[in-house]
Amino acid sequence: MDNTPISLRNFKATDGFWKNQMELVRKEVIPYEWDMLNDRVEGATPSFCMRNFRIAGKLMAEKREKGSAFEEPLYTFRGFEALPEDPEHPEDKFYGFVFQDSDFSKWIEAVAYSLMNHPDDELERTADEAIDIVCAAQHESGYLDTYYIINGMDKIFTNLRDYHELYCFGHLTEGAVAYYQATGKRKLLDACIRFADYIDSCFGSDEGKCKGYPGHEIAEMALVRLYEVTGEKRYLDLARFFVDERGKQPYYWDNEEHPEEKTPGERYQYNQAHRPVRDQDEAVGHAVRAVYLYSGMADVARLTGDEELWNACCRLWDSTVREKLYITGGIGGTHIGEAFSFPFDLPNDTAYAETCASIGLIFWARRMLEKEVHAKYADVMELALYNTVLSGMNLDGKSFFYVNPLEVLPEACHKDERKFHVKPVRQKWFGCACCPPNIARMISSVPAYAYTESEDTLFMHLHMAGTVTKQVNGSEAVFAVESGFPWNGKVTVTYEGEAGVPVKLAVRIPGWCSGRKIQVPEHLSGSEANGYLYLEGTWQKGDTVSFEFPMIPRFFQADDRVRENIGKVAVAKGPVVYCAEEADNGANLHLHRVLPGEPVSEGTVTIAGQTFPTIVVKAEKKVQKTPAEGLYHEYQPEEYEAAELTLIPYYAWANRGENEMMVWLRK
Amino acid sequence: MDNTPISLRNFKATDGFWKNQMELVRKEVIPYEWDMLNDRVEGATPSFCMRNFRIAGKLMAEKREKGSAFEEPLYTFRGFEALPEDPEHPEDKFYGFVFQDSDFSKWIEAVAYSLMNHPDDELERTADEAIDIVCAAQHESGYLDTYYIINGMDKIFTNLRDYHELYCFGHLTEGAVAYYQATGKRKLLDACIRFADYIDSCFGSDEGKCKGYPGHEIAEMALVRLYEVTGEKRYLDLARFFVDERGKQPYYWDNEEHPEEKTPGERYQYNQAHRPVRDQDEAVGHAVRAVYLYSGMADVARLTGDEELWNACCRLWDSTVREKLYITGGIGGTHIGEAFSFPFDLPNDTAYAETCASIGLIFWARRMLEKEVHAKYADVMELALYNTVLSGMNLDGKSFFYVNPLEVLPEACHKDERKFHVKPVRQKWFGCACCPPNIARMISSVPAYAYTESEDTLFMHLHMAGTVTKQVNGSEAVFAVESGFPWNGKVTVTYEGEAGVPVKLAVRIPGWCSGRKIQVPEHLSGSEANGYLYLEGTWQKGDTVSFEFPMIPRFFQADDRVRENIGKVAVAKGPVVYCAEEADNGANLHLHRVLPGEPVSEGTVTIAGQTFPTIVVKAEKKVQKTPAEGLYHEYQPEEYEAAELTLIPYYAWANRGENEMMVWLRK
Repeated sequence: MDNTPISLRNFKATDGFWKNQMELVRKEVIPYEWDMLNDRVEGATPSFCMRNFRIAGKLMAEKREKGSAFEEPLYTFRGFEALPEDPEHPEDKFYGFVFQDSDFSKWIEAVAYSLMNHPDDELERTADEAIDIVCAAQHESGYLDTYYIINGMDKIFTNLRDYHELYCFGHLTEGAVAYYQATGKRKLLDACIRFADYIDSCFGSDEGKCKGYPGHEIAEMALVRLYEVTGEKRYLDLARFFVDERGKQPYYWDNEEHPEEKTPGERYQYNQAHRPVRDQDEAVGHAVRAVYLYSGMADVARLTGDEELWNACCRLWDSTVREKLYITGGIGGTHIGEAFSFPFDLPNDTAYAETCASIGLIFWARRMLEKEVHAKYADVMELALYNTVLSGMNLDGKSFFYVNPLEVLPEACHKDERKFHVKPVRQKWFGCACCPPNIARMISSVPAYAYTESEDTLFMHLHMAGTVTKQVNGSEAVFAVESGFPWNGKVTVTYEGEAGVPVKLAVRIPGWCSGRKIQVPEHLSGSEANGYLYLEGTWQKGDTVSFEFPMIPRFFQADDRVRENIGKVAVAKGPVVYCAEEADNGANLHLHRVLPGEPVSEGTVTIAGQTFPTIVVKAEKKVQKTPAEGLYHEYQPEEYEAAELTLIPYYAWANRGENEMMVWLRK
Repeated sequence: MDNTPISLRNFKATDGFWKNQMELVRKEVIPYEWDMLNDRVEGATPSFCMRNFRIAGKLMAEKREKGSAFEEPLYTFRGFEALPEDPEHPEDKFYGFVFQDSDFSKWIEAVAYSLMNHPDDELERTADEAIDIVCAAQHESGYLDTYYIINGMDKIFTNLRDYHELYCFGHLTEGAVAYYQATGKRKLLDACIRFADYIDSCFGSDEGKCKGYPGHEIAEMALVRLYEVTGEKRYLDLARFFVDERGKQPYYWDNEEHPEEKTPGERYQYNQAHRPVRDQDEAVGHAVRAVYLYSGMADVARLTGDEELWNACCRLWDSTVREKLYITGGIGGTHIGEAFSFPFDLPNDTAYAETCASIGLIFWARRMLEKEVHAKYADVMELALYNTVLSGMNLDGKSFFYVNPLEVLPEACHKDERKFHVKPVRQKWFGCACCPPNIARMISSVPAYAYTESEDTLFMHLHMAGTVTKQVNGSEAVFAVESGFPWNGKVTVTYEGEAGVPVKLAVRIPGWCSGRKIQVPEHLSGSEANGYLYLEGTWQKGDTVSFEFPMIPRFFQADDRVRENIGKVAVAKGPVVYCAEEADNGANLHLHRVLPGEPVSEGTVTIAGQTFPTIVVKAEKKVQKTPAEGLYHEYQPEEYEAAELTLIPYYAWANRGENEMMVWLRK
């Protein structure tokens, strides 16, 4: 039974938490990104992204002028200005990372979602013009990656491990599908179809075709999206081919020439290509790559009914969630290779926990949900969303974290090179700007994670406020959802559709909740399975189901094998993890011991003009002494004085300048 | 008043702790190193050290044959075999690190000390032959660094920051002085004098001379040794010049061409050349470099009476000891740059704490003692010696630690690249083999750290067992010392010299000791100053002074600002720090909490055939649970069961295979 995300067209957000986030992205992030893509942000490292497309497009235009055979004159030129002479770059070269094209792709995807949520003619016009520029760069073959178009098409597909062209294809396709779904405009979609067809003509199991696969995964899930929007099974087959070739021995990449050897340790573990994916049991390597692959694997398993592949997904899920997940929903214990560390190695102050990795984890979780409706997936999706993903962006939408540590001493970030990857405050933009546009596309499409649907059932995973419309047998079921999430667990669902539509509503019962109260009209019946409450019956207009999922502050401990957290507790309330910040508690957070048995109180704090809930826990603070002996002194029973620690939502930290922060607190 | 190390000739070790260590070095380390220097150890990375000298020597010989003007025919050739053709190295190039020459220098220094402790004709013959090879490589100018002799003399002194020729000069000179003192043979000493004279002709404050200084310090203290053995003041002046030029602006090194930029962060902090040494307050940068510099500074300050320079030494000492010293006497909190981290940043499991850095710390401490007799210096010397230095070598003398961590989980060392510098067991040899030969020269010369003397006073810093002879006004005072150090604090000093020699004996009262008992013959008087007990009077043959410095197991805590150790204790007894090892306690050491208020017991354990004392502390161990919730579970009061932890001397760890180890224990 298909269970797929709702269309954003069928959802209207109502005022509240997520609408605010989506508006922030629409008003701040998307315009800022557009300026970034065009190198118009003063002081920021230039992106070169649109510049590369323009250069590549000029090359293509020159070819046309010289009579080179384009199969059809697909391209019109609008708003295409001549490039000014740049004295610093006398030649029109490719600049930026090899995957710079993907900045545009993530932007156009975010734009597409935003247009569905909030139509905006001017933004759509800008997007159309950008698409013209991008499409003008496409090679006559269908190939579309500016790095090779500019530097020489003779080298395409010669370094699949490192050079990201299949990755750029994947992102472009995700953006194109979304833009088509948002606007009905096919131009970018058609360009991607031509690119996909070209790739399909080059790669595959047929004799003579290339047996390579992407060094950075994403093409797998992108091809599935292209299959779903076009119905063209070749794209699903190609996705499956990439999934299945991965890690086969002899290793395909061994025959590529790599400019430098980047894979110490177990060969290709960094790229999850150390062994066939069906034989993999442990989430390893670059965390973003990993969860993008696992997402594509789950897609393919669902659409092909491949149980062996599905079992691999389930094993990798368990490995990730049971051994390698931060309590904030972050993944990636080490900055070396931006990677998973070994099981239970989850350091707090050197954490990587990349924003993009948690976004990828959400992609994966929803795809697991599409095949198996189980609250365990939605629990992780929710955790990652409310904590690491939101932490990735400042409250004003103007600066971003790439790395989301669970403990910060700013002095260490400045002076200890081992922590240089950890920034004590969010940064304006990054040379490698994967996270900001990824946040934008994630938040703009949250409703498609909050709600999925099968033929007759609407699944509410994330209790997001808004109105959802669902077609069932040609009739329209409409649910209006009010929600206190993530700050309180009161959720009311009012049926506003036609009477008698045979629709089921499946509502997730959060894993963190106990003692829920649910009121259901008598003419509806409820049953529970895998953490979801299924409501069905003869829906009447005005039927109201009300839920209360009590959110109370709770203390958590980690598995004993997480050495970093032995003797420590963390605090969460509902889906939100809390942290102690110096701004509320003074410096030297490490001197505190919280008393998890004691009652806690709750309050509020204003951060950057917004009010946030706080949790105040009882603690004791070590009386600081500076013994004459110096650095080490003979043990004496320590003196502690009564104290409190005020905790704030983790994602709101670092909005008051540089200061200490801690999620895991000594007890 | 001069207070300088005793000559090893005036000391005869008696059976016991240090004699055993010295014998181990003599029998195992020195021969093994000689094989290493000659690339005769199967499976080890070749050193190329003696090979480089031979190649350089052949070049010099060719020059002679062609009539190039050597000022005098200084060199004889003994045991100089033709190099076999090496098919892998068709040309005679320089191989190894730019500082590879120094491997010989440290070896010859260890040999010199060993010969003084234990004459050995065969070893001396080998050493003489090695010296012949080395001296044959000397350039007619006096210059003697094989890297440039082989690669081209036109480039000498053009990259002082990185290319170590003044460092190699320093080590060679230290070795040459020691060998001269041991054997009276001048050949290597004279070669070094010529090299020093050549350097002196190139560097200095006179107009036209180079104003550079070494990138890796050691020449400063080596020049002082050369001054002390020759009486030639120019060498002291040159040492002072190097000390004073360091860090002056504009920076000398800015005008050198460096093959790659290696100094991120504050410029030249890595080399302690970010500002003039007299203005430095904080121990920073590469830890070995730092303490070698500070040693040279202390030498110059003492010999020139330069109080400003001395004050800088004192500030840097305080910075090191009060903010940057591991409880094991290790220094260097970060492997990045093998460097000091910021104050109080002393991570246990990623510690660098290089063996060589603690050796350098001992050099420095003794030089501070030479100017100011204060037990605080000897306390640190003792701590570093019994813990980090001894930890650097396996109990069988056949393998070595470069890095001396305070906490090890072997899995992390294998799987976490951030800990790849931490080895869970000692290694046979290193490509950069600075530590093993440094251990050899350190241990072979321990008596010169244990005892120093001024005109009328013998200082006993380390309570080392043996017989010390001291000349006072032409008479001979002889003290026979029996000692239980480091395992018990019973020390007996029996006077065995001529009666009535006006000698004072100054005995350090260890900083770790309280409740000492001292018995002194009635005709001697005692007074205490700066942690030393001064005994004087009319010594009679057979006079016995007995000391008991109670060694009891003690629990230590770190300064609150050492975040890593908050809530933890370490255990020491006398000068020896103890640790918990998996071999005695099972895995998961982190689950234990020690109870520092409870009584402890003591026992013994056999490791690699040797018996070691143990300290058994009361503890409790968390009952391990694997909650169904997975990685995180709601807090429940933990269950602990009574347990014990058996602790062994830190330096003896990792002699029973790979296993967990911890110095700092939760309480």
